[in-house]
Amino acid sequence: MPSVGVVGGGQLARMMVPPAIALGIDLRVLAESEGSSAAIAATAVGDYTDVETVLRFAEGLDVITFDHEHVPQAVLAALVEKGVAVRPGPEALAHSQDKLVMRARLEELGLPQPEWASISTSAQLGDFLDAHGGSAVVKTPRGGYDGKGVRVVRSAGEADDWLDVGAPLLVEQLVSFRRELAQLVARRPSGELVFWQVVETVQEGGVCSEVVAPAPGSDGRFGQVAAEIASGIAEGLDVTGVLAVELFETTDDRLLVNELAMRPHNSGHWTIDGSTTSQFEQHLRAVLDLPLGDTGLRDKWSVMVNILGGPATGSIAQRMPRAMADQPAVKLHEYGKEPRPGRKVGHVTASGDDLDDVVFRARAASAFFEN
Amino acid sequence: MPSVGVVGGGQLARMMVPPAIALGIDLRVLAESEGSSAAIAATAVGDYTDVETVLRFAEGLDVITFDHEHVPQAVLAALVEKGVAVRPGPEALAHSQDKLVMRARLEELGLPQPEWASISTSAQLGDFLDAHGGSAVVKTPRGGYDGKGVRVVRSAGEADDWLDVGAPLLVEQLVSFRRELAQLVARRPSGELVFWQVVETVQEGGVCSEVVAPAPGSDGRFGQVAAEIASGIAEGLDVTGVLAVELFETTDDRLLVNELAMRPHNSGHWTIDGSTTSQFEQHLRAVLDLPLGDTGLRDKWSVMVNILGGPATGSIAQRMPRAMADQPAVKLHEYGKEPRPGRKVGHVTASGDDLDDVVFRARAASAFFEN
Repeated sequence: MPSVGVVGGGQLARMMVPPAIALGIDLRVLAESEGSSAAIAATAVGDYTDVETVLRFAEGLDVITFDHEHVPQAVLAALVEKGVAVRPGPEALAHSQDKLVMRARLEELGLPQPEWASISTSAQLGDFLDAHGGSAVVKTPRGGYDGKGVRVVRSAGEADDWLDVGAPLLVEQLVSFRRELAQLVARRPSGELVFWQVVETVQEGGVCSEVVAPAPGSDGRFGQVAAEIASGIAEGLDVTGVLAVELFETTDDRLLVNELAMRPHNSGHWTIDGSTTSQFEQHLRAVLDLPLGDTGLRDKWSVMVNILGGPATGSIAQRMPRAMADQPAVKLHEYGKEPRPGRKVGHVTASGDDLDDVVFRARAASAFFEN
Repeated sequence: MPSVGVVGGGQLARMMVPPAIALGIDLRVLAESEGSSAAIAATAVGDYTDVETVLRFAEGLDVITFDHEHVPQAVLAALVEKGVAVRPGPEALAHSQDKLVMRARLEELGLPQPEWASISTSAQLGDFLDAHGGSAVVKTPRGGYDGKGVRVVRSAGEADDWLDVGAPLLVEQLVSFRRELAQLVARRPSGELVFWQVVETVQEGGVCSEVVAPAPGSDGRFGQVAAEIASGIAEGLDVTGVLAVELFETTDDRLLVNELAMRPHNSGHWTIDGSTTSQFEQHLRAVLDLPLGDTGLRDKWSVMVNILGGPATGSIAQRMPRAMADQPAVKLHEYGKEPRPGRKVGHVTASGDDLDDVVFRARAASAFFEN
């Protein structure tokens, strides 16, 4: 029985369990704490920044992969040194761990992205603002997610608190975009690479709230360009497993790379119900270097809506009956996490032929779990 | 978090795990032994015929349900006496535990079935044979499955070894049938009842080998009759959870009830990939008295092929890469069981618009795991 170890016990690890059961894969999770989202598969609880903990967890596993990007390079290097297959590998992961490394590499690869710079002083930020119409986005290169570590600035002093830490920051042009897209691909060590159709993502306060698959109007040029960009990144960075490329569709009709994630991603949750092969099954196949599955759509449209925060009173379980009765064809996905403002505690997916109806049903179902 | 206990750690319990994860249900399995098919959810290992073992397992659970029909009535009664919700209940289960009880009750309900009798002597068998053209099917009322405990006889002495045991046997008319069908329904304690479309099942040596969903030509009268029969049984026997009704489609155009199963059933495995709500998710909803999910088809056709016996050499895992490469759109389901001649060790499901193509792909994928 092939075995896969997942570092991190969040909802991404949790959602790898069903395809592991179907394919007969021994999935083992190193969780941060007891009662994690992926507790059913947690064979260890410990600190993923501790080399000994991770090495002990890796014993007897065919491959190690990740629920998140925060495993330190020193730990990854120790795994590789012990002969453990780490997928994606440390070099690839460095690009999703550090946005400055990512920007520099995409530039080398000639891939389209917002104009950017590495800054260490407010004077440098001022110069960038002067050159880009007076506004920009400043990002901490490491550790940001779901809108954290990202700030829109309009004057040179607005990043001083972050600059005081002493590490360089990433500054990017504030892109004028029509909408945001995400291109999901999977690649295995032997080189096989597959795409799902590009999707539209809707953010609320820096957090993904909805995904429409496929992105309306993407069957033409945009779909092909998105696939070419993602394929260039997957191959250029030697990514194995699932890669999500978040893109801006600009008001002047270009696609620019916003962020990368080298793991199953919120923009791909719709694939569980809406694609022949889910991103979670595909990630397991890819990191085990197994042939990749068909990425075709099961329905004309699938819409995923995140359950953000969860119920203000009671529990998700208590809200379940009304949501089920109201929307019998919507698929519910609970993450086993305590409700907390803004936290992703679940998602729902609706599918069908009529986009307006699909959007309506997905939003109707998710609404039962909020407020 | 609602909790469901499953007695029995076979593949049916295993396949309840993915929907339990999605719906946030605490699923706990009482397995017969370590390393069971449902090991990932096994919180206890023990003897399901032992009252104390089962009562201890049931502590703190909202409801108890089953992977198989073999839990003794005394154990079921002890659970009910302790106030544990048992679904389906002991009275309903009695009809799937004893085929004589089932036949008598279906007769009371006026439901169509083969002519039958309870026999205790070879003379009685001889009389039945004389009245039914010289051939009949003799069944042990209890404990039979997958063709075991079933024998076609053509003379009065051919059941003597079974009669010597001292318990009455069921004898049934040898039905001349065109094909076998299965009607799957789900019913919750509050009365809600849903149907999937009737399917065609193909048996080899008494074991289900293939299922075609929906049964070709069933959109007319047959589909409606099958649904009415199954609904009559579910309500007449007060079944909760999933009920599978196996039917003969006779050469003179009638549907007759062959067997019942009060749990998810091999004839419904296609629903994991081919229906909006799988039989496993539906069973969990039903036994928890949650609103039932949509039973619509995801595709025009779905075909499930069992992997019977498994590879003669090597393991299922070793055969996986070639099957995946050859059939990237076929869904593979492994049961975590050691290969053994005739044993159900997994299944595959293909879906699509063209039935010939779907049958071809499902058979092609399953063939990689046999011989």
